[in-house]
Amino acid sequence: MSILVVGSIALDSVKTPCGETKEALGGSALYFSAAASFFAKVKVVGVVGEDFPHHKVRFLEERGVNLEGLEIRKGKTFRWVGCYEHNLNEAKTLSTCLNVFKDFNPKLAKGYEKNDFVFLANIDPVLQRKVLTKVEKPKAVVCDTMNFWIKGKRKELIKTLKDVDIMILNDAEVKEFAGEPNLIKAAKWIRSLGPKIVVVKKGEHGALMFYSQDLIFSAPAYPLESVSDPTGAGDSFAGGFVGCLARLKEMTESNLRKAVIYGSVMASFCVEKFSLERLKTLTSEEINQRFREFGRLVHFGR
Amino acid sequence: MSILVVGSIALDSVKTPCGETKEALGGSALYFSAAASFFAKVKVVGVVGEDFPHHKVRFLEERGVNLEGLEIRKGKTFRWVGCYEHNLNEAKTLSTCLNVFKDFNPKLAKGYEKNDFVFLANIDPVLQRKVLTKVEKPKAVVCDTMNFWIKGKRKELIKTLKDVDIMILNDAEVKEFAGEPNLIKAAKWIRSLGPKIVVVKKGEHGALMFYSQDLIFSAPAYPLESVSDPTGAGDSFAGGFVGCLARLKEMTESNLRKAVIYGSVMASFCVEKFSLERLKTLTSEEINQRFREFGRLVHFGR
Repeated sequence: MSILVVGSIALDSVKTPCGETKEALGGSALYFSAAASFFAKVKVVGVVGEDFPHHKVRFLEERGVNLEGLEIRKGKTFRWVGCYEHNLNEAKTLSTCLNVFKDFNPKLAKGYEKNDFVFLANIDPVLQRKVLTKVEKPKAVVCDTMNFWIKGKRKELIKTLKDVDIMILNDAEVKEFAGEPNLIKAAKWIRSLGPKIVVVKKGEHGALMFYSQDLIFSAPAYPLESVSDPTGAGDSFAGGFVGCLARLKEMTESNLRKAVIYGSVMASFCVEKFSLERLKTLTSEEINQRFREFGRLVHFGR
Repeated sequence: MSILVVGSIALDSVKTPCGETKEALGGSALYFSAAASFFAKVKVVGVVGEDFPHHKVRFLEERGVNLEGLEIRKGKTFRWVGCYEHNLNEAKTLSTCLNVFKDFNPKLAKGYEKNDFVFLANIDPVLQRKVLTKVEKPKAVVCDTMNFWIKGKRKELIKTLKDVDIMILNDAEVKEFAGEPNLIKAAKWIRSLGPKIVVVKKGEHGALMFYSQDLIFSAPAYPLESVSDPTGAGDSFAGGFVGCLARLKEMTESNLRKAVIYGSVMASFCVEKFSLERLKTLTSEEINQRFREFGRLVHFGR
């Protein structure tokens, strides 16, 4: 099974109470690919500048990530500078230089039209829709977004959601989008816009999946005593989630639940180190072991 | 198995986005007793004024709650007036009239010395300790507290915790008490003060139980589309938790996990209506059905 991902590729400079990193690999498409690569073949659509350090993403290619769709344009790669203080749920942006990402216009490389899953990372909903017109209908379209589009391109986002099967977003975004303080009501409202399944990421509080009017699945977060860098946790979650679905093939209730747990597993690894460092050294054995630990974390008898 | 609870008994006037209630039954000891009464025999130690509407707690006596330890003093019963806005996790106190509760000095009625469990609800840690000197050593001492004592009587609280087996408190309190933003580290620090088990209530995000250096249990919250009144949720949780332990007798890992879920079940019912209204009409069948729903909420295959 194969996955197409469209999103940002960036060089991030991040400071947290645990340390800092400068111009390290980042962006939704890279975090997603690194996480999903443990489960399925991934093709990446994105844009970088002439200064992009291609040797640093070789490990992704070695894991079967197809980077042929990486457009190299004149100019510099997208830069983001941010920091986190004690509340690790909230990033503070210090500077954003979109550079070549400013005029991103997703182009599909040869052989990119046919995919089992398409993941539309957090980009302009107009571009998200454009990508969908260029690909054959996949098994499922999975979509992320952020407050910037919820506020600024609400109508376009709602239009895009008509073609989306699974929406993944965080709790604050769900509430803002729906204009409703109750998360359960808010998520159900989003289901009424098109996506049959809504997955709500709650950071250190885990995730909730809504997949029919009354069916809800609740996943815990992995208890971590130290978080180095929360950047990319959401995209790593999406990578584990979509990757798991691609590996298991059928979108049954049971597989969807497992996918949420694998998403949580990948997010928990991502934040242990800066940038893609932890996802780079990670092994399938570690992933499966943590999956089992999630089982022990929530198990109770009858 | 029997439980002794020491705590407040109040008449609450509460306003929430869902409605309001005036001078309704409230206080930690009443919420705890109402919840625990479904599982075990409960004896109450508390104080009320001459104006207390005793006929309103008759339903508790009918469920086997022993109210002989309710001291009636000259003066008025403790009054609390509060409101909740859209953030239902945070109560805003509009007025507090301690009245007869101001000089509360717990006295044990005849036959109150011998208990399997003692629950020290949120009162002055000096009084909590005093109660412990008057009873025979129970199977377990369970203790709650609040930011008021964490700030104002820190040393006394730490002294009390030496004699406590299980500490129940909310996430903000854990972090404040430990002076540590990471909940896992903070809860482990509290374990170092005496309690072998620490249960952290996270409101709409569920609960975590820490019961050995590395063992953590994570319980979800029951997804509610509407919360009428969050008052008493924490004490109802404690009532379900301690009640379940008393019914199951042995404090095994498996029973502790079930107890956290029964605590969550009771809290979820409590907030469905104002005051004790929902706990008053509740049945054991409803409790057991919701317990099974918690199982479905978190279940995933291997």
